Amino acid sequence: MIDKKVIIHFLGFLLIIESVFLFLSLGVALMYGDGDAQGFLYAATITLLTGALLYFLTKASRRPINKREGYIIVSLVWVVFSLFGSLPFLLTGAIDNFTDAFFETISGFTTTGSSILNNIEALPHGVLFWRSITQWMGGMGIIVLTIAILPILGIGGMQLFSAEVPGPAPDKLHPRIRETAKRLWFIYIIYTGLETLLLWFGGMSFFDAICHSFTTMATGGYSTKQASIMYWDSPFIHYVIIVFMLLAGANFTLSYFGLHFRFGKIFKDEEFRWYIGIVMLFGTVVTVALMLSQHYGLERSFREGFFQVVSIMTTTGYVTADYLSWIPFFSFVLLVLMFVGGSTGSTGGSVKIMRILLVMKNGYYELKRLIHPHAVIPVRYNGHSVNPQIILNILAFVSIYITTFAISVVIMSSFEPDVETAIGSVAATLGNVGPGFGQVGPTENFYNLPVFGKWYLSFLMLIGRLELFTVLVLFTPAFWKK
Amino acid sequence: MIDKKVIIHFLGFLLIIESVFLFLSLGVALMYGDGDAQGFLYAATITLLTGALLYFLTKASRRPINKREGYIIVSLVWVVFSLFGSLPFLLTGAIDNFTDAFFETISGFTTTGSSILNNIEALPHGVLFWRSITQWMGGMGIIVLTIAILPILGIGGMQLFSAEVPGPAPDKLHPRIRETAKRLWFIYIIYTGLETLLLWFGGMSFFDAICHSFTTMATGGYSTKQASIMYWDSPFIHYVIIVFMLLAGANFTLSYFGLHFRFGKIFKDEEFRWYIGIVMLFGTVVTVALMLSQHYGLERSFREGFFQVVSIMTTTGYVTADYLSWIPFFSFVLLVLMFVGGSTGSTGGSVKIMRILLVMKNGYYELKRLIHPHAVIPVRYNGHSVNPQIILNILAFVSIYITTFAISVVIMSSFEPDVETAIGSVAATLGNVGPGFGQVGPTENFYNLPVFGKWYLSFLMLIGRLELFTVLVLFTPAFWKK
Repeated sequence: MIDKKVIIHFLGFLLIIESVFLFLSLGVALMYGDGDAQGFLYAATITLLTGALLYFLTKASRRPINKREGYIIVSLVWVVFSLFGSLPFLLTGAIDNFTDAFFETISGFTTTGSSILNNIEALPHGVLFWRSITQWMGGMGIIVLTIAILPILGIGGMQLFSAEVPGPAPDKLHPRIRETAKRLWFIYIIYTGLETLLLWFGGMSFFDAICHSFTTMATGGYSTKQASIMYWDSPFIHYVIIVFMLLAGANFTLSYFGLHFRFGKIFKDEEFRWYIGIVMLFGTVVTVALMLSQHYGLERSFREGFFQVVSIMTTTGYVTADYLSWIPFFSFVLLVLMFVGGSTGSTGGSVKIMRILLVMKNGYYELKRLIHPHAVIPVRYNGHSVNPQIILNILAFVSIYITTFAISVVIMSSFEPDVETAIGSVAATLGNVGPGFGQVGPTENFYNLPVFGKWYLSFLMLIGRLELFTVLVLFTPAFWKK
Repeated sequence: MIDKKVIIHFLGFLLIIESVFLFLSLGVALMYGDGDAQGFLYAATITLLTGALLYFLTKASRRPINKREGYIIVSLVWVVFSLFGSLPFLLTGAIDNFTDAFFETISGFTTTGSSILNNIEALPHGVLFWRSITQWMGGMGIIVLTIAILPILGIGGMQLFSAEVPGPAPDKLHPRIRETAKRLWFIYIIYTGLETLLLWFGGMSFFDAICHSFTTMATGGYSTKQASIMYWDSPFIHYVIIVFMLLAGANFTLSYFGLHFRFGKIFKDEEFRWYIGIVMLFGTVVTVALMLSQHYGLERSFREGFFQVVSIMTTTGYVTADYLSWIPFFSFVLLVLMFVGGSTGSTGGSVKIMRILLVMKNGYYELKRLIHPHAVIPVRYNGHSVNPQIILNILAFVSIYITTFAISVVIMSSFEPDVETAIGSVAATLGNVGPGFGQVGPTENFYNLPVFGKWYLSFLMLIGRLELFTVLVLFTPAFWKK
């Protein structure tokens, strides 16, 4: 059933693509001449040669890739990309050990944004560019994954989503993936370009502008500055980033409808309405709470409140304020938002609004069913009633998510004797957010965690990004039977 | 549809029963002559007169009580009992304000065990007896509720349980409740007597022995000593209490089978096997961790480890050690256990093992379904396949539980600027555990919380004890329609 050669062939192909981005970074390194060009040359060459070797020594399958192979490929791609992607960090000397280099790279490709770097400004431009573009590539991968692959694999309610995707009929796998990806990548690239221009216009250097646009659209959150967006004391830049984080955390197919002037479809989308509603609600609460507890003025409270709310909820992870210096109430609000996450079909991670919404609806409908036990009351979403089997699947996703969170906090607390750090590091990596609480808060990073902790959190970033099931199914005996 | 007089009639009847227990406490007060007799006389008389007035001024319904009336009665009983039950605390001067008296009483009737008392030993015997017996009465109420009423109301998967209950056919509501309650109350009383003798034999005074037996069997956790079970430096007492907490946290119908020598039924029960398995797993982990981190000897680690694990997981809430003085790892383990709770059909609270088990199974089965999307794979429990509708109901319960927890932590953190206290107070009251973390840890209590916090936590104890749905359904518009 599982053809190893098919998998290797596919990974080889993708490694060749990764090497293209490494050569691009080599170009940046050569342009700035910070001494990192040699490292990139080696890294790009190794990746290209390995990719080419794997690709040409195996043969493409004549039959379509099957589901099991799909799970393996998806899980492996992120790991293999991170392995090769950590080469530039090691070969340029930017990071001096494999654990940290791998952590930084998988945090990039999973668009998490948790960092182990203590002096980002000192890094050569090529490395900073590579670091940012790993997130951008990760975001592109996620768009294909969530829009074209996960619905077919039937993971976590993504089936609900697939009916809405513009593109050829869902039974034609290959043209469908290609067409859908093309259309949505086009939007992704347009947004990246637009944000770059606006940030440049707002006072960032062109280099910083493009790097931040890469990591905004990916909801990644890597910055070229140690202080993240706090470095720029410009309300214009903050507002531009808030808007683009909001776009990146929304379903990209809605942007597609928007570009075709079909605004009705956008505002009729239940998930989008809740997305905006949750942002408004939490943004307003945080704004008011900041005015009351920190005595900031209205504009500053509004800007810092909404920036942090949007950044955490979309799982971007930029910061313009040290929220840990605020009273603990804010940490709890942000912790709750870390579990909400972005929309389906966005580059945002975590549980995602569609799932939260259906979990809530099922809870409310059960109360209704108590009163009318003989009535059939199916949960409705976007005007259609939802198959109970899909609700079960979504609830399974959420319960596995929460169980993973709880077990992981206990694991992290066994060698990290600090409550906030244990909770914060797990919530931030499993949800692909970036910064957490305690020692991994917005002004600190993951450098001081023990080695095992870094590997464990890397694993959490991976399973969080791949919607849990994709990876966890590989650990079930049933998967490998026959 | 909803007949107010029927509800009032029923509440009147129950208040007369409450007054019987108040008169019993009056007897204890007179026996010890600590000066609290007058307060009890007034409290008992007021309760009796009110109950009699309500009972005789209204008429019993000729038709059976309907479901809506059932929800209202169940929710009101605990509130009304707590209102009248707080009278002795106020009238004897044991507690000087209504908020604290109500908190202490509802914490008793819900078998939570969270206390606001700072000098328990100084209280007169009558008050200590009343405080303990509120939990014992609460436990009796819960047995009737979970075994005979909730399955009929269809709440949170309790339907699964009902088939297993010994008693007349399920369609005969009244004889069924009466018979089932009688049989299980008999066991409850036998266990209480047995534990009293053993604790007395182990060195407790007879008064302390009976009070602790009341609160063990109810998984309540009120102690007659400020230091809880830590007061007695006797391994025998500790082990006796561990055993009876385990019995109280197990399904009482299994004890019924045990008394009829049908041990096969006990060990075939999936929930029971998981219950014992979880206790063994967590007990062993904590024992080993205590040896490694606290350098206690084996016996002490074993005893303190298992005592705390069993006490927290069964939601009793006794302590023999200040677990907050241990490293944070232990707090996380205990926090996780606070969400597990006891078995269905026990007096234990929180989510309960049957539900956790089915949530986990659904998660695992979804992974299986991913691999075999066209196979029908129903979740099995105790050898039967479970209707997906029941799984949805259970998942709704768990998601409402977790949502309530998250929202409540944010609410508590808004006026209680301390992370551990906010989390600990909510987990401990919603799960009817008793002590929490931070300022409400095992050696402290709930006295210093703000007034609003105490009322909010009282509400959490109520909804936690009544399986959420019973109370929350009253807040849906659909409930009051027509």
